[in-house]
Amino acid sequence: MNFSVIRYVCGWMLLVVAAFMALPGLVAIYFHEEAGFALLWTILASLAVGGLLIIKKPKNKVFYSSEGYVTVALSWLIISAVGALPFFISGCIPNYIDAFFETVSGFTTTGASILSDVEALPKCMLFWRSLTHWIGGMGVLVFILCLLPMTGGSNMNIMKAESPGPSVSRLVPKVQSTAKILYSIYLALTVIEFLILALSRMPLFDACTITFGTAGTGGFGILNSSIGSYTAFQQGVITVFMLLFGVNFNIYFLIITGKIAQALKSEELRAYAVIVVMAIAMITANSLEMFKNVYEAFHHSAFTVASIITTTGFATVDFDTWPVLSRTILVLLMFIGACAGSTGGGLKVSRMLLLAKTARKEIKHSLHPKIVWKVKMDGKVVEHDVERSLNTYMVIYTMIFVASLLVISVENYDIITNFTAVAATINNIGPGLSLVGPTANYGFYGWLSKLVLCFDMLVGRLEIFPILLLFVPGTWKRF
Amino acid sequence: MNFSVIRYVCGWMLLVVAAFMALPGLVAIYFHEEAGFALLWTILASLAVGGLLIIKKPKNKVFYSSEGYVTVALSWLIISAVGALPFFISGCIPNYIDAFFETVSGFTTTGASILSDVEALPKCMLFWRSLTHWIGGMGVLVFILCLLPMTGGSNMNIMKAESPGPSVSRLVPKVQSTAKILYSIYLALTVIEFLILALSRMPLFDACTITFGTAGTGGFGILNSSIGSYTAFQQGVITVFMLLFGVNFNIYFLIITGKIAQALKSEELRAYAVIVVMAIAMITANSLEMFKNVYEAFHHSAFTVASIITTTGFATVDFDTWPVLSRTILVLLMFIGACAGSTGGGLKVSRMLLLAKTARKEIKHSLHPKIVWKVKMDGKVVEHDVERSLNTYMVIYTMIFVASLLVISVENYDIITNFTAVAATINNIGPGLSLVGPTANYGFYGWLSKLVLCFDMLVGRLEIFPILLLFVPGTWKRF
Repeated sequence: MNFSVIRYVCGWMLLVVAAFMALPGLVAIYFHEEAGFALLWTILASLAVGGLLIIKKPKNKVFYSSEGYVTVALSWLIISAVGALPFFISGCIPNYIDAFFETVSGFTTTGASILSDVEALPKCMLFWRSLTHWIGGMGVLVFILCLLPMTGGSNMNIMKAESPGPSVSRLVPKVQSTAKILYSIYLALTVIEFLILALSRMPLFDACTITFGTAGTGGFGILNSSIGSYTAFQQGVITVFMLLFGVNFNIYFLIITGKIAQALKSEELRAYAVIVVMAIAMITANSLEMFKNVYEAFHHSAFTVASIITTTGFATVDFDTWPVLSRTILVLLMFIGACAGSTGGGLKVSRMLLLAKTARKEIKHSLHPKIVWKVKMDGKVVEHDVERSLNTYMVIYTMIFVASLLVISVENYDIITNFTAVAATINNIGPGLSLVGPTANYGFYGWLSKLVLCFDMLVGRLEIFPILLLFVPGTWKRF
Repeated sequence: MNFSVIRYVCGWMLLVVAAFMALPGLVAIYFHEEAGFALLWTILASLAVGGLLIIKKPKNKVFYSSEGYVTVALSWLIISAVGALPFFISGCIPNYIDAFFETVSGFTTTGASILSDVEALPKCMLFWRSLTHWIGGMGVLVFILCLLPMTGGSNMNIMKAESPGPSVSRLVPKVQSTAKILYSIYLALTVIEFLILALSRMPLFDACTITFGTAGTGGFGILNSSIGSYTAFQQGVITVFMLLFGVNFNIYFLIITGKIAQALKSEELRAYAVIVVMAIAMITANSLEMFKNVYEAFHHSAFTVASIITTTGFATVDFDTWPVLSRTILVLLMFIGACAGSTGGGLKVSRMLLLAKTARKEIKHSLHPKIVWKVKMDGKVVEHDVERSLNTYMVIYTMIFVASLLVISVENYDIITNFTAVAATINNIGPGLSLVGPTANYGFYGWLSKLVLCFDMLVGRLEIFPILLLFVPGTWKRF
């Protein structure tokens, strides 16, 4: 294990976080908010510690797969711990565990909150809270890759560990260039959404924070009513952009480079579209009685489906009051999640597709045992290795889910609350049903349950292995 | 596809069912019950049709794997359809779909009932209802294997399709002898339980029917209070026998043949014991406040854990009123189920064990990619094929679960009811929570939901593939 390079990268992480934190600092200056000093102290401390960590450059910048995982896991813990400080120091969230929960929820783009009254926060804190979504969406280490030159090939292991989905493909031969392209697309989409919302006469501060929440598929709102009080047009724009940020960014790269036909042939994209359309149709039909007319039912169904499948977690209405079929579909969507390589969470559409294809292959195999059947994705044969590690992923995911459920069940809240709380955090959605529904929050859970849910959010965002490796004794041996 | 041999075996099935139905016929004669005529007509019809089907012996008695699956699936549909006739003809269950549900629930050893007042049934019908558990427990085709000589080796394919668990091992080289040994152990354990209950002064009729329910891990009671009104000693005896019938029958064969050390080394047996002990300890501690003292809490926790993990479904108390942690543990136990090769349902302990071992292997692999790791079970290396088909099993299981959940959710009962209804039928348990809790029944669901749950019970008992193959067009091609 190359500890010096891990130290070096973590140092850079602190500097980057400090730089990002300057933005809410500017907001504090503009609005003359005292809470800005909490940001200032945190920035100064991060710069000092980060600076110390990067003074000595590592001799050997080679990164192996396990170092990539450990670096990613540690970095995310560090930025969450540091990112929570402004909330805590300013007294906006007086309990540090609560502040940590809120920040983990932000960076992992979950959007689960412990705050019952969001509107009481100063504007600079609201801005920082939403900005964590934007930073976490594409991945902060991917951002560092844009800046920091690493030894050839080794930075692929960082990207692999931080990017969501069963596999990562380089868009261009150089990983650093891939990271730059991804961040450019991300930035461009963000700016477009902001401009459209601003042109629709949404207040600029709202447009900015909501765009951060949409882009990272996070879901922190700045109003207690989430997105409910905005105009139908603005809600529609957010619906469209939530769905767009749930698409694999490779698709956009293909479109930009003129390979539109290839982009539209993507099996994951098609499956994603089919699931979204079917879910909207079923929920519209099922929840018709809750609304004045079909159009309104469709509007809110589309918003909610987009919000849940992309794991954003915004709400226009209290979907916890919808009929059982609708709620059941929403819970299922929580697990499916968005496309791999997007900013969304969940298990990812491509994983579901791969599982379904494997199952179909095995059924065919049991009928015609002598034919060799292969699973194909986008025309390419899927190796047994990928199938196997996918299955392992599902098993460990289930084990973590069950263990979390048992621990938080000790507090004796109802089963639906506990089940959807774990589902909404491990899949990085935010709101669940019942006590953690869209109009409620996670504040009532005890500190142990909150820490478990923080763990679930990190496990969900980093796709298990980086976080899990921290707990395997073998990781810490120098071999 | 060798259709003539499928016809021949199905004919024998009808004769065997008619023979079994003679037993409740005797009960009807003894108690002078008019409902006995319904049994008589069914017996005569079965004998007539069955006799016609076996007149012409098939030229070719060779059985391939897919024929084994199809025969098993068809046979189970036939015996359920025929077994429902006495309830329907006698008017005890006036709706045929309800009668079919009750019979499928019986043969699959689920124990889910649509009856709100069991005590209103005539004794002969109660006897037939409980007897279906006993017949279904070990498998009716395994019983036929004892009688019917098949071409060497081919009957293994029947046994494989009907026996629960990821793999079947022959106890002795000849499959027919294996079937005879299994049925002898089954019969012996049944007789022992009956004698102990009878000696404890339980009425003979009760002792007999409850023993059938325990042996098949079914769970139909003959009183509305299930097992609640019997003495603590009798409840204790039932607890022990439920656990015993949840053990892999190979273990008993090893013990009988003197290989006790080998029997006790079985990894599945150990995991089963550990899960049972841990679950009882946790539920006892968690449900303490519900009972007068620790002993009583332990007594009912042990009974309920045994009843749920073995997928029997008897109840001494209304566990739906227990604290959330206890109920959550029970729902998890529903999925784990009993040991492979027992009469119990669920996913089976050995599958869980194998999944956990595979996951551990993959984590080790990601740390030390150059070492070749193997999964071992009872000292033997598990082949990749077994791992792969296990994973497929889990995927298809989940897909069927989700599809069933969506269909029955249309009726708009609460999520816990729907979720545990599907869990309790696909895992062959019987009672779930909320509206399908231990003091309730499944009568309120509509006909479509009932048929879906029937499908789930069959899928659960026959472990998916036989039933699934009926729906694959390729099965019906003569190739």
